[in-house]
Amino acid sequence: MAELSDSDRTFLEPYLPQSASLEQNHPELPFVTVTYAQSMDSMISLAPGLRTTLSGPETRNMTHYLRLQHDAILVGVGTAIPDDPGLNSRYPGGTLDSQPRPIVIDPRRRWDVEPSKVLNLARQGQGKGPWIYTLPEHCTNPDHELEQAAGKRFSFSPKAQQPSGENGPDFSWIELLKHLKAQGINSLMIEGGASIISTFLSTPELVQSVIVTIAPTWLGNGGVMVSPDQRKEEGVKVNAARLCQTMWRQFGADAVLCGRLQ
Amino acid sequence: MAELSDSDRTFLEPYLPQSASLEQNHPELPFVTVTYAQSMDSMISLAPGLRTTLSGPETRNMTHYLRLQHDAILVGVGTAIPDDPGLNSRYPGGTLDSQPRPIVIDPRRRWDVEPSKVLNLARQGQGKGPWIYTLPEHCTNPDHELEQAAGKRFSFSPKAQQPSGENGPDFSWIELLKHLKAQGINSLMIEGGASIISTFLSTPELVQSVIVTIAPTWLGNGGVMVSPDQRKEEGVKVNAARLCQTMWRQFGADAVLCGRLQ
Repeated sequence: MAELSDSDRTFLEPYLPQSASLEQNHPELPFVTVTYAQSMDSMISLAPGLRTTLSGPETRNMTHYLRLQHDAILVGVGTAIPDDPGLNSRYPGGTLDSQPRPIVIDPRRRWDVEPSKVLNLARQGQGKGPWIYTLPEHCTNPDHELEQAAGKRFSFSPKAQQPSGENGPDFSWIELLKHLKAQGINSLMIEGGASIISTFLSTPELVQSVIVTIAPTWLGNGGVMVSPDQRKEEGVKVNAARLCQTMWRQFGADAVLCGRLQ
Repeated sequence: MAELSDSDRTFLEPYLPQSASLEQNHPELPFVTVTYAQSMDSMISLAPGLRTTLSGPETRNMTHYLRLQHDAILVGVGTAIPDDPGLNSRYPGGTLDSQPRPIVIDPRRRWDVEPSKVLNLARQGQGKGPWIYTLPEHCTNPDHELEQAAGKRFSFSPKAQQPSGENGPDFSWIELLKHLKAQGINSLMIEGGASIISTFLSTPELVQSVIVTIAPTWLGNGGVMVSPDQRKEEGVKVNAARLCQTMWRQFGADAVLCGRLQ
């Protein structure tokens, strides 16, 4: 994997946790970066559960660079199961200490952590052991394999749990972020899937930075789409989310957009 | 309206009809550019029939520059009715002769051309009279007002009409493009709406150039979305469309992507 050029790193620098310009002013919460790759038609996958390669080699390098700049990477179980992602950084020069902590949100314990790439990488010292968040009623067995790979399962019963509809959230995100911060996670990348990304795009108060890769392709109807819930002001539909302080840059055939949610 | 910088024009030049690198090799068809502005979630409007401003002043200037480089601009009736677009170019230095011909596809004659901005601009000498394509059974009355503004209504009954499903096309696009070329239209911008754009993105053999503006905002669920129909190869879903020879450039807060359909 190649290193980014100086100018690529200069482009990204203002949107990273170390930057002075984007501060996380709430001491109980980590710095949150939402980052993902999409097609022109805002899709991250051709169909639910189907891993789809969108970004080219240049933007993949960038993703691994970004991972090294954060303490943790968070994905939902709907990404962990079909993609079996490594959630580590292969960027040159990373040490085990500088690797991000993989965080998987698996409320109903659907993900078999053994076998998984995350666990294998942790065993080989190429990544940290994953932390998995599961609802208390699904936390009955101890996870020896997980713990032997320096992972942990958190039985997560947030005090301020939100009302849970059929498709509603199982977690209060703000309580989850506070819990992560209390465990020493000062900066967090939200990488997927579509519903978690859409939720965070609708919650500007929890997000410091947004970094999106756009590939010049259309996946077509029926793919898995990132789109926040519609928003109304005084009964009138308005834009669901907006970025300010935007910067665009071409990386290979793709573009990268950096910005801050308004 | 400000002129584009030299470097902006240099960026666009390879994707314009005058460019030597993108030739229209079929003498019976015009050079076709698909161009539109979208949100990050691939929407062109907050809701059907609702005009939504997406692009900033820099990309609006670019659109008016592009219009001067083409013989005609085509939109569907679903854009003409709610948007009441001018379909002329306000870019500095345009003469009436260099203005694009407005083309409106109105199969069932739903659009009242009087009053409309297009007709007013034609009367004032600030744009050409519109050409409207309507199915023969809806072409009963002569259009004095249209003709007095140097417009025309074409009763269009293509020889090679495609099967028309409930939402199917009323026209064979290739026959329509041949008809335009026979009327002296050598270059055509396809500007909207979403279903016409999606159709052309799925028809690379009819399109020489694609120029998309992306605004750093999400309109949210329920907007009017550009997304081509899904495509399968040997039963497996594949990308519906792809661009090659892509170039990206930041214009204000937006990005512009230029490319050629593969």
